[in-house]
Amino acid sequence: MNKKDKILIIGAGLCGSLLALRLAQRGYKVEVYESRPDLRTVDISAGRSINLALSDRGLKALRLCGMEEKAREICIPMYGRLMHDRGGNTFSSNYSGRENEYINSISRGDLNAILLDEAEKHENVTIYFNKKCKKVDIEKNIAYFKDYNTKEEFPVIADVIFGADGAGSSLRKSYISERKFLFSYSQNYLNQGYKELEIPADKSGNHQISKAHLHIWPRGDFMLIALPNMDGSFTVTLFLSYDEGEFNFENLTSEEKITEFFEKEFPDALALIPNIKEEFINNPTGALGTVKCSPWFYQNKTLLIGDASHAIVPFYGQGMNASFEDVFVLDEILCHFERSREIFDWKSIFKAYQKARKDDTDAIADLAIDNFHEMKNHVANPLFKEKRKIEMDLEKTFPTEYSSKYSLVTFNENIGYNEAMKKGRAQDKALLNLISGDEVHTHLDMTKEELKVILDKVTKETNDILQEDKIAGL
Amino acid sequence: MNKKDKILIIGAGLCGSLLALRLAQRGYKVEVYESRPDLRTVDISAGRSINLALSDRGLKALRLCGMEEKAREICIPMYGRLMHDRGGNTFSSNYSGRENEYINSISRGDLNAILLDEAEKHENVTIYFNKKCKKVDIEKNIAYFKDYNTKEEFPVIADVIFGADGAGSSLRKSYISERKFLFSYSQNYLNQGYKELEIPADKSGNHQISKAHLHIWPRGDFMLIALPNMDGSFTVTLFLSYDEGEFNFENLTSEEKITEFFEKEFPDALALIPNIKEEFINNPTGALGTVKCSPWFYQNKTLLIGDASHAIVPFYGQGMNASFEDVFVLDEILCHFERSREIFDWKSIFKAYQKARKDDTDAIADLAIDNFHEMKNHVANPLFKEKRKIEMDLEKTFPTEYSSKYSLVTFNENIGYNEAMKKGRAQDKALLNLISGDEVHTHLDMTKEELKVILDKVTKETNDILQEDKIAGL
Repeated sequence: MNKKDKILIIGAGLCGSLLALRLAQRGYKVEVYESRPDLRTVDISAGRSINLALSDRGLKALRLCGMEEKAREICIPMYGRLMHDRGGNTFSSNYSGRENEYINSISRGDLNAILLDEAEKHENVTIYFNKKCKKVDIEKNIAYFKDYNTKEEFPVIADVIFGADGAGSSLRKSYISERKFLFSYSQNYLNQGYKELEIPADKSGNHQISKAHLHIWPRGDFMLIALPNMDGSFTVTLFLSYDEGEFNFENLTSEEKITEFFEKEFPDALALIPNIKEEFINNPTGALGTVKCSPWFYQNKTLLIGDASHAIVPFYGQGMNASFEDVFVLDEILCHFERSREIFDWKSIFKAYQKARKDDTDAIADLAIDNFHEMKNHVANPLFKEKRKIEMDLEKTFPTEYSSKYSLVTFNENIGYNEAMKKGRAQDKALLNLISGDEVHTHLDMTKEELKVILDKVTKETNDILQEDKIAGL
Repeated sequence: MNKKDKILIIGAGLCGSLLALRLAQRGYKVEVYESRPDLRTVDISAGRSINLALSDRGLKALRLCGMEEKAREICIPMYGRLMHDRGGNTFSSNYSGRENEYINSISRGDLNAILLDEAEKHENVTIYFNKKCKKVDIEKNIAYFKDYNTKEEFPVIADVIFGADGAGSSLRKSYISERKFLFSYSQNYLNQGYKELEIPADKSGNHQISKAHLHIWPRGDFMLIALPNMDGSFTVTLFLSYDEGEFNFENLTSEEKITEFFEKEFPDALALIPNIKEEFINNPTGALGTVKCSPWFYQNKTLLIGDASHAIVPFYGQGMNASFEDVFVLDEILCHFERSREIFDWKSIFKAYQKARKDDTDAIADLAIDNFHEMKNHVANPLFKEKRKIEMDLEKTFPTEYSSKYSLVTFNENIGYNEAMKKGRAQDKALLNLISGDEVHTHLDMTKEELKVILDKVTKETNDILQEDKIAGL
């Protein structure tokens, strides 16, 4: 490989545009083809404002590319969850006991736009819009595109092709259809779908409910969540079964039934969503799928990256962060190879990248599924609440010694998702069993000494659990 | 549904022919289409004799259909593993401490033949051979076939279609390609492939090594196994990486290298495989894949069954047993519906069947992967060996009170795979930690009292583990 290689990136979404930017900064020649129109000139959101949670892993990658500050300008910090019960009562649960640990609501479109702007400042980057990748000949390294404006189809040949084309990746589909190698692949759908709604800003353009929280209406089998937007509105998302329970997407077909459902389950939210009926009927019901696959690369020619290689459900707020971290990890490997070796090829880079990354993206996929059950269920469970209270106290009192699973995953960008998952799960198990077995006790004003006793018990029990799993070969 | 429904079964392999037989016994009208020629009249094994392990779950289903005794006539009991080291030394490890618990080597072709014979005795069964299913229109319930003899293509319409067409199921492919519903699907390949070889009978037609064992040559990263055939031969299977390690399928391309590999790793086996070079070069290298999917059914029209719905790797010897057990479980549900309800439809049956069965087939898929690592690795590990010795003693001394994971999976056909997995894994973890922590001690002649102490410790520790997992929501 060398820097004269022609690099083709399929997809100019969040991952594709950050990857283009970083490769350009490293001196590579990059062409990017995106199926959608340029979101900086055409409103492609159909009136809806889609937001995402940006946290430390994503920020780490943005920092690498010099984009952290620009991103922070369009961020709304969310310090915790605000839970809403059926009676309209709320209680909050912080994401961390440490100050300065919070997640950020950010507009997907706005973030994408600043990344495209920055990438295009580099003359070694060219971005084409309205060019849909139909398939890739992975042997000859030719991607076939259709121009949505002219309807013409045309091939693009490249030395290296990156598939940053999201959960429905056409490069990944070509891996499956071309059958040139054994491709392990999974797509798993939850039995719940989602639908987006909107809480508009008030007349003064302000947020109608706390913008410093991620709002959750947990109801066991389903839930509603809301994230703030810069314009004072909230994007609300309903997660609901397709076909099970009293209310589900299959039977919520009439305006009466929709209203009945919201009146019964989310009366306070209903009062804030003026266009509920139109939005519910007109907005599409989205599927919640997890995609895993392996290998991500074919020879020295192509690599899947971001959602194309590991699409996950949104419940840990890590989808974008994981994709940005992909770029960070790939950059580390490029850097290492460029520095330490005289001759190397893309295959070695791809292989090293997948080896460094695969366990971590598998882990966040599984964690995201776990968090679905936690958000709609456990957040209202007394045992879980007590665990969270203890964890907040521990993080506050021993900020360098304790991190909850959530903190390990979200705020500890220097350890991988897999390590965060293993340690976090063992800690959760330790704490839940200590609480359930009456071995730790809490009250409102815990002293540092009392908390130290709990910290020591949790640490010992966590290490025992990890050690026992290790001996059992788990 | 009623018994006049036209039922189409795609595939007359082991699962399809047992299903046809059972549905015929229940009075249904069944047509079966099989892509291969009739194996009772044409030798389709290309000179190789493929055998499988038949055990209690498979025998339970055969018993239901009145086929147990006929199957037992062609069984060779294997009471344990016989491990071969590089020096040609062997040591054995029984499958159970109880007498009368053993697995059976059986010819796939011979077993399939007796099932076909029995099914065809029913006039409500018709079996067509050389008819390859190309695709299924799942909305209209039409299966499209190609006749391999006449080359003609023709449709078959049916009220209900069962896809018993194995790991490469065309019904399952139609579920994917037709995109009528959210289909969760995974195919996962091991990095190891397999190749079949043969140890022929001696000049008198006898077995050259013990026919009462499943032979294993465990070598950590790869292994050789051998199962006996009725004609005195053994079918030998090499499991080896495609591209890793000093020797792998990619680099074993010359006769010299093949011989070097076997001389170094399997000298005693090499001496018994006269045609090693021809067989190694001419026999195909097979892939080892796991397939999971959901839902198995579409509306009231089609159902995947056997390998078509859950293909697994062969390391627990449960592939055929799981498919036969599918037929048993489906039959239970049919029986229950027929007895208890006046009106019911196939969709309710399919739904109840998947609900009863899915966790169990997921479990055996995972157990089979675990056992791959155990067979090639742990069987030679001292901790594992001590665990097996204790378990054999416990099963022998307390036959009604203790069953190892292997026994729960293989010989306890009245509990599901999932329960066997959960209990078995907890027991393994308990025992390995007790041994490793020096909390149980063994010697050659353990008394009943000494073993009772171990049994109590293992039971308590296992229950603690299960309880702690439950509290942690695992």
